[in-house]
Amino acid sequence: MYITCLDLEGVLVPEIWIAFAEESGIPELRRTTRDEPDYDKLMKWRIGILREHKLTLRDIQNTIAKIDPLPGAKEFMDALRSECQTVIISDTFEQFAAPLMKKLGQPTIFCNSLEVDKDGFITSHKMRCEKSKLTTVRALQSIGFETIASGDSYNDLAMIQASKAGFLFRTTDKIKADYPDLPTFTEYSELLGAIREQLKK
Amino acid sequence: MYITCLDLEGVLVPEIWIAFAEESGIPELRRTTRDEPDYDKLMKWRIGILREHKLTLRDIQNTIAKIDPLPGAKEFMDALRSECQTVIISDTFEQFAAPLMKKLGQPTIFCNSLEVDKDGFITSHKMRCEKSKLTTVRALQSIGFETIASGDSYNDLAMIQASKAGFLFRTTDKIKADYPDLPTFTEYSELLGAIREQLKK
Repeated sequence: MYITCLDLEGVLVPEIWIAFAEESGIPELRRTTRDEPDYDKLMKWRIGILREHKLTLRDIQNTIAKIDPLPGAKEFMDALRSECQTVIISDTFEQFAAPLMKKLGQPTIFCNSLEVDKDGFITSHKMRCEKSKLTTVRALQSIGFETIASGDSYNDLAMIQASKAGFLFRTTDKIKADYPDLPTFTEYSELLGAIREQLKK
Repeated sequence: MYITCLDLEGVLVPEIWIAFAEESGIPELRRTTRDEPDYDKLMKWRIGILREHKLTLRDIQNTIAKIDPLPGAKEFMDALRSECQTVIISDTFEQFAAPLMKKLGQPTIFCNSLEVDKDGFITSHKMRCEKSKLTTVRALQSIGFETIASGDSYNDLAMIQASKAGFLFRTTDKIKADYPDLPTFTEYSELLGAIREQLKK
């Protein structure tokens, strides 16, 4: 029995921090794991910047409210979920994801959470588990699922490689070049087609 | 971070085999785990009865197509899923569950599967894992979730008792009497209220 595990940002919705960097006019917030590979360090630094600019969780949520799923993402998810159990596995936070999940038809998402003080400032981030994408895929495999995985970034590679079938989606030229054996798609129809092929096996 | 784990039959939709026993006019198929606690033995016996009556998977699916979720179940699921990640953990089969999931707004379900021959006869059942409800809840806990669980039957007790909060829903008088410490509800509004209380903790 198969379950499909998908990355969120870059695959189904735009990058949230990039959108917020633009909306807030704070270009430093464009910094991602490509610049700072240590996610914990990056998040602490982001939380510091937010505090410095007196920006609360609500401010970020107001930006997220204006973000729509990528064109075709909702239709892709609707089709996929009617044919295969599907879980989004993301490093984002439940407080960011909620409005986006509503727009995607309420798929299941396994992500992280933020701690917020009484004034609405983000005080810390709480990771659900270590190496969340790989650990989650392994846990699903341990309860009898075969996994199919897709994502766009370095942090998706482990779950893609640990799965029965794995696909890169809208990834960078660098990752494509580094992992030439992984099928790479840019259109939802291609990704859906490849997942359907695997479901027949 | 919480995830809610729900039983399917009796909690969100009627009992599928009971509906099929009535529709097909084969009263023996009303036999459940209350009569035969060994699920593997029960399923093999059911598959034999179907074969004897020349009934295929399609015949059962035709009955299931006429089954609706219990009144209020869809609204309950919509409300719950917008507030908490939710997974249905069921001993049913993906081939039975699919049309019901569509009517419930496509929630995620972790269940089992059936093997079917080229003539459409069910040849065997394939369980996803051992003690699927408890094993699945433990796997979710291993990846950083605290679980909330609800169900109506004996096979739900392990996941209910292993969870941070567990609730019986529309259960039998016998189970209520045997487990007087477990909160028991009959209305979706009560169950949703109890889950909301737990989410605040």
